[in-house]
Amino acid sequence: MTTPRRQPTARQRIVAGAADMISRRGLNATSVRELAKHSQAPLGSTYHYFPDGKAQLATEAVQYGSAKVTRALRRRLHAGPVAGLRAFLKLWRGVLLDSGFRAGCPVLAVAVEEPTGEQNPPPIAAAAEAFAEWQRLLADSLREHGTDPAQAAALAALTVAAVEGAVAMSRASQIIQPFDQVAQQLEALITAALDRPA
Amino acid sequence: MTTPRRQPTARQRIVAGAADMISRRGLNATSVRELAKHSQAPLGSTYHYFPDGKAQLATEAVQYGSAKVTRALRRRLHAGPVAGLRAFLKLWRGVLLDSGFRAGCPVLAVAVEEPTGEQNPPPIAAAAEAFAEWQRLLADSLREHGTDPAQAAALAALTVAAVEGAVAMSRASQIIQPFDQVAQQLEALITAALDRPA
Repeated sequence: MTTPRRQPTARQRIVAGAADMISRRGLNATSVRELAKHSQAPLGSTYHYFPDGKAQLATEAVQYGSAKVTRALRRRLHAGPVAGLRAFLKLWRGVLLDSGFRAGCPVLAVAVEEPTGEQNPPPIAAAAEAFAEWQRLLADSLREHGTDPAQAAALAALTVAAVEGAVAMSRASQIIQPFDQVAQQLEALITAALDRPA
Repeated sequence: MTTPRRQPTARQRIVAGAADMISRRGLNATSVRELAKHSQAPLGSTYHYFPDGKAQLATEAVQYGSAKVTRALRRRLHAGPVAGLRAFLKLWRGVLLDSGFRAGCPVLAVAVEEPTGEQNPPPIAAAAEAFAEWQRLLADSLREHGTDPAQAAALAALTVAAVEGAVAMSRASQIIQPFDQVAQQLEALITAALDRPA
């Protein structure tokens, strides 16, 4: 539809594989060796592309996962906050169903693991930035469609939080119902926020 | 205030320590040896009390974390859904602030990790049951206070999902703001649900 996509490079394939693996297994439990294996990349080339090792690869994996969401949001928020929400929901629903409830969100996976070393390591900073970016995009769109700024920011935080939590609830129960209940509530809330412009 | 509490047994201390450790580090990355060390229990006594090893201890740790939440909810839901919500929020806000944003929810931690072995392992089943129980308690209270049954169930799912997601967002950003924004939205929603009885 738009510009033709180039084949991903070997480096990009490793990042995408790491994002998938982290969304399934978490970060602390996953070694660079396992990340390389999951991406079907030689361990040597993984260290070649990511000389700083696991923290560097994990940071880029979080950014990769985040950018996929950001692209989907940007593309659909042109049509308004409800369209943007639906794109956000569709993406996560797809991850759950396509993986048989085994994969989730790499950003959440990194966010809920205490760092073993330094205080504010790059992968967790990248996770914070991902959540903040998704909230900003949703909040900006809500404001542009007449929602009061403070309410727009809080409703955007609620949306991101609830979808992240719902992905985890559906993974635990192995059924899509919790996710769909949350999706329906969020759509009603965002629709109502537009019906009451400031 | 109520019956005096007994000192926890050695077994209970190990379960409580495991719940804290899992809420920080996740399950896959944590060995029985680390769980024992975190509880300041000898490894031998840990295997004595939990002969089935990590899966058994993790399952009880999830149930322990869940029961703490369930008790807080039951105690305050007598005063209505808003009081119950506030108890739920207060508990998680306390975990975040008391740990310097390093600890979160052991139930979520287990829910977002792909099992390495069997299809539906006991710790993940315990996580699903925990989420379901919290939702049931909130939904029952909403229904008793006049909310339509389907809406009560969906709003309860939204509440649990949003609080779990908000804990993760505050851990990533190391600030309480995302949690507080979500808390304020949920209180407004639950209050509004009571203002519109079926």
